[in-house]
Amino acid sequence: MEHPLSAIAIASDHAGFALKTVLAEAMRRRGLAVLDLGTDGPASVDYPDFADSLADALADGRAARGVLVCGTGIGIAIAANRHRHIRCGVAHDATSARLTRAHNDANVLALGSRLIGEATALDALAAFLETDFEGGRHAQRVKKLGVNKLSGETVP
Amino acid sequence: MEHPLSAIAIASDHAGFALKTVLAEAMRRRGLAVLDLGTDGPASVDYPDFADSLADALADGRAARGVLVCGTGIGIAIAANRHRHIRCGVAHDATSARLTRAHNDANVLALGSRLIGEATALDALAAFLETDFEGGRHAQRVKKLGVNKLSGETVP
Repeated sequence: MEHPLSAIAIASDHAGFALKTVLAEAMRRRGLAVLDLGTDGPASVDYPDFADSLADALADGRAARGVLVCGTGIGIAIAANRHRHIRCGVAHDATSARLTRAHNDANVLALGSRLIGEATALDALAAFLETDFEGGRHAQRVKKLGVNKLSGETVP
Repeated sequence: MEHPLSAIAIASDHAGFALKTVLAEAMRRRGLAVLDLGTDGPASVDYPDFADSLADALADGRAARGVLVCGTGIGIAIAANRHRHIRCGVAHDATSARLTRAHNDANVLALGSRLIGEATALDALAAFLETDFEGGRHAQRVKKLGVNKLSGETVP
């Protein structure tokens, strides 16, 4: 198994495209392999499609974690969290990004390009990449997030 | 069918208990029927259980919309969004709450009691209650959020 931070997938809709470019470059400067799943320009697209692509990349092992961007971060996070193997935390600053790693073991960070600026987004990204899951009392809650509410099955 | 705002469910974990009490009282002052699903005190509980209870209340028609509170709002929103009929938007202020209604047609608002203060939370709640879904280009994206990623079925 690869190091958990060896490859990071990133995806956005058109509203998040510019910020995605900034975040991808920041991750490359850290020496991370970045899997950019688009979108690739300002043309209007549907954010759920890009959340699904990123969920697929984490499911098949092409990436260990992911970053998603749309106008608010909220819509693309709802779409990502439809997938049981994804725990996508919407963050609006470094504090919320740190806490969703520490408490929710988030494997995907969602940011809103129309709500926060580049510097705030970069600080949130750094917190997401550098914070470990605390485990302990949080572990049983995270385990419950992996239960399939439709079938009762548990995600491995 | 009842008026969409005739009954609002609210639930939280222990971290969100105090803010839940404030938000429930604010909704009652607006003349809304509030279905309080707990938790009922500061004893430690698991936030996914309360997200599930609220999702059940919306599924069986006891409430038309919901409000969830945990320390960050993020974990309880991940749990809520495991349910296909829930579109739970994590908000950190009135702007994000307004946009998740306008763009995502969010039927549940999630707030973080350790990240925002009471006044900010009350403004976010007001925006959530008073903002209509914009429809239009957003409708096809919201429709995609209702597709069951496991079975391909669409939520009615």
